[in-house]
Amino acid sequence: MQFKILKKDRQSKARIGLLKTTHGEIRTPFFMPIATKGSIKGVAPGELKDLEAQIILANTYHLYLRPGHKLIEKLGGLHKFMNWSGPVLTDSGGFQVFSLAKINKVLDQGVDFQCDIDGGHCFLSPEKSIEIQMSLGSDIMMVLDDVVPYPCDHRRAKEAVERTTNWAQRSKDYWAHHPASSLRKESPHLRWVPPYSHSAGRARPMLFGIVQGSTYKDLRLKSAKDIVKLNFDGYAIGGLAVGEPKEEMWEVLDYLIPELPEDRPRYLMGLGKPEDIVEAVKRGIDMFDCVIPTRNARHGALFVWTKSNAIRGKFYHILKIKNQEFAEDKESIDKTCDCYTCQNFSRAYLRHLFMTEDPLGQRLATIHNLRFYLRLMEKIRKEIEKS
Amino acid sequence: MQFKILKKDRQSKARIGLLKTTHGEIRTPFFMPIATKGSIKGVAPGELKDLEAQIILANTYHLYLRPGHKLIEKLGGLHKFMNWSGPVLTDSGGFQVFSLAKINKVLDQGVDFQCDIDGGHCFLSPEKSIEIQMSLGSDIMMVLDDVVPYPCDHRRAKEAVERTTNWAQRSKDYWAHHPASSLRKESPHLRWVPPYSHSAGRARPMLFGIVQGSTYKDLRLKSAKDIVKLNFDGYAIGGLAVGEPKEEMWEVLDYLIPELPEDRPRYLMGLGKPEDIVEAVKRGIDMFDCVIPTRNARHGALFVWTKSNAIRGKFYHILKIKNQEFAEDKESIDKTCDCYTCQNFSRAYLRHLFMTEDPLGQRLATIHNLRFYLRLMEKIRKEIEKS
Repeated sequence: MQFKILKKDRQSKARIGLLKTTHGEIRTPFFMPIATKGSIKGVAPGELKDLEAQIILANTYHLYLRPGHKLIEKLGGLHKFMNWSGPVLTDSGGFQVFSLAKINKVLDQGVDFQCDIDGGHCFLSPEKSIEIQMSLGSDIMMVLDDVVPYPCDHRRAKEAVERTTNWAQRSKDYWAHHPASSLRKESPHLRWVPPYSHSAGRARPMLFGIVQGSTYKDLRLKSAKDIVKLNFDGYAIGGLAVGEPKEEMWEVLDYLIPELPEDRPRYLMGLGKPEDIVEAVKRGIDMFDCVIPTRNARHGALFVWTKSNAIRGKFYHILKIKNQEFAEDKESIDKTCDCYTCQNFSRAYLRHLFMTEDPLGQRLATIHNLRFYLRLMEKIRKEIEKS
Repeated sequence: MQFKILKKDRQSKARIGLLKTTHGEIRTPFFMPIATKGSIKGVAPGELKDLEAQIILANTYHLYLRPGHKLIEKLGGLHKFMNWSGPVLTDSGGFQVFSLAKINKVLDQGVDFQCDIDGGHCFLSPEKSIEIQMSLGSDIMMVLDDVVPYPCDHRRAKEAVERTTNWAQRSKDYWAHHPASSLRKESPHLRWVPPYSHSAGRARPMLFGIVQGSTYKDLRLKSAKDIVKLNFDGYAIGGLAVGEPKEEMWEVLDYLIPELPEDRPRYLMGLGKPEDIVEAVKRGIDMFDCVIPTRNARHGALFVWTKSNAIRGKFYHILKIKNQEFAEDKESIDKTCDCYTCQNFSRAYLRHLFMTEDPLGQRLATIHNLRFYLRLMEKIRKEIEKS
C-alpha cells in the first residue's frame, strides 16, 4: 500500500498516516509549498529541506509554457532540473488554463487556449496533461479536470462533472498504457531513469482523481461516485476555496468525504488559511497546498504564533513587517520559531530589507512563513497522535 | 602593527600581507563585496562566509539616510544588525553625496545636499561622517573627501585637494577625541560594546586617508605628501576609475604609489575589472571594492575562468546566461568553480530562473560572481607567495 493510516483522531475524522512516493515517505496530513515555475521565489531547495518541507507542488501549466516539459525531461526531469530530491506533486494545468489563459474553446477533446507568453495556440487534453507530468517526472500526478468558477449554474456545473469524469477515465487509460520504456525510446538522450520506469522495477507515479460539482450536493455525490469507481491512488476535491462562503465549503466536505475511500489520501486543492487547514483536517483531509504563505511573505505579511502549542481559537496573528512600529524592534519575527530567519535576524533588519526592496527580505520572509505552515502541520499531526 | 607584509613579489611591487581588524585578520590583497544598504542583494551573510569573503564594504551615505546610523547603533551596530561577524569597511559617504545627491553647496565646513529619499536638507561634514561611521561600528573608516568628476580643470582639482587635506585633518581630530565612552554615555541603551571602546581595552577602528588630485601629477604628489603627513592607518586613492583613460590611471599609480608608506595598506577605490585588479596589485595596491561582480550578476552576466590557474592574458570570459544557447545546457556555469551555484545548478536552470524573473536567479548569479572575484584574489595571493 502506498498510503497507510497510522492513527485516527478520537473526536473528529482527522487521521495521521504515511504516503510512500518514489522520492520518499511523507507524513500526513501535510502542506505543499508551491514552486510554480520550478522554484520557490528566492528560496533554494536546500533551504526547503532545512524547513522540513516534505514535498513541493509544481505547476504543469507554467512549466509546459516555459521552459517546456520536453526540455525538462531532456535535462533529467524536474527533480534534477531544480535540484530537489524530495517528492513533487504536479497539478494537471487545468486550474491555470481556466483562470489565467484566454480560452478559445472547451471541447470534450480538451481545452484550446492562447499561451500567456507569446499568444500562440495551445491545446491541453487529459492525455497531454499526463504526458507533460510524466516528462516532468512527477511523483503524484493529477488528472485534468473541467474547472468552473463560483458561482456557477447547475447546468454548467453538471457539464463540468461529466467532462471531468470522462477526462479522468482517459487520463487513467493514458497513464496505464504509457510505460516509461516507450518514453525512454522517444527520448534516447534521457540518461536519468524516470521513477515510473517499469523496467527499472520502480513504482509508477501516483495518479489522483478530482471530484468537481461546485456547491451542488447531487453533483458532488455523483462526481465522487464516478471518480471513485475509476480507482485512483488518491482523491482531490477541486472547485472549493474559490470564493464560496466558508459554511458552504464545510457543508460540501461534510457530505462528500464519507463518499471517498478511507484508505486513500484526500487532497483539498488550494486551501488555505491556517484555521481552515485545521478545520479541513478534522473533516478528514490529508493534503494541502496554498499560495498564502509565500505570497503573503512577499508582501511582508508574516505569521506569528500567539499560543505556544494550541491550534484552537485565534492561534496566530499577521505581523506587517513594513509598519513603522518595527523600525527599532530587536526581536525576531516570532520568538517561538526555529526558522533560519528568526534565528538570525531582527524585525528591524527585516523591515529595513523590505523598505530598501532587497530581495533578501522576501526570501527571509518566505522562509519564515513556510516554516509556520510546516510547523502548523507538525502540530496538527502531534495533536492527532496524542488524542 | 595592524598591517604586516608577509612577502613581496620579485617582479613587481605586489605584496601579500595581513591586516588586523577588530573583527578578524584579512589576507591582502583582498576584494570587498559591496553591501550598499547593509545587505548584498538577495544574499545572506552566512553565504558570504561560505564564499570566503573576508570583509565587506557598506555605504555610509545610504545607511545614514535609511535606516539611519542612530538606529543601527541602537540595535548594536551594523555587524549585529545584518548578522555579519567579519570586518566591515565603511566609506565616508563623500562619493555618493557627490554622485547621487542634489548638492546645494560645497563649503569648507562640509556638503549641504538634498536627501534622495524625502528631499529634505542634509549636511555632511568630516566630523559627521566619522560620527556616522562610529555609530555603524565600522572596522575601517574612511575620511570624507572632496570628490571631483573626470575630466576636471586644474583649479577645481586643486581646491578639492586642499579641502580633502583639511577635511582629513579634521576627521582625524574628531576620530582621536571621540572616545567610545562618550558615545556610550549618549546611548545608554547600547548594550553592545563598540569595538573601538577604550575602556573595553579593544582597538579603535582604523582610519584611512584619501589621496585626491584627479590626473594632475603635481596635485597628486602634493595630496599624497599632505595626507601621509597626517599619519593614517592606511591610504586610499580616490578619483580614479571614474572614466579616465586606463593609461592615465596606471600613470598616476606609477608615480603616486612610491609616495605612500610601504608599511600601510593601499586601497584603490572602486576598481574594477579582473584584469585591472591584477594590474593594480602589481603596482602595489592591497585593497579593492567594486560593484561589477554583483551588478553584472543581477543582469545575468557571469564570469567564467578560461585558464585553469594563470591570471595573465585573457583569463576569463563573460557568459550571458539569458542567451538562448544555454537553454538546454546541463553544465554548471563554470566547471572549475567551487561555489554553491556551480555545485548545484545547471546553466539551463539558471537561465530559466532569469527568464521567469525569479530572484533566486540573481542570488545564485551573485554568489557565483563574488566567488569568482574572491578566487581571483586567492590566485593573486598564491602567485605572489610562490614568486
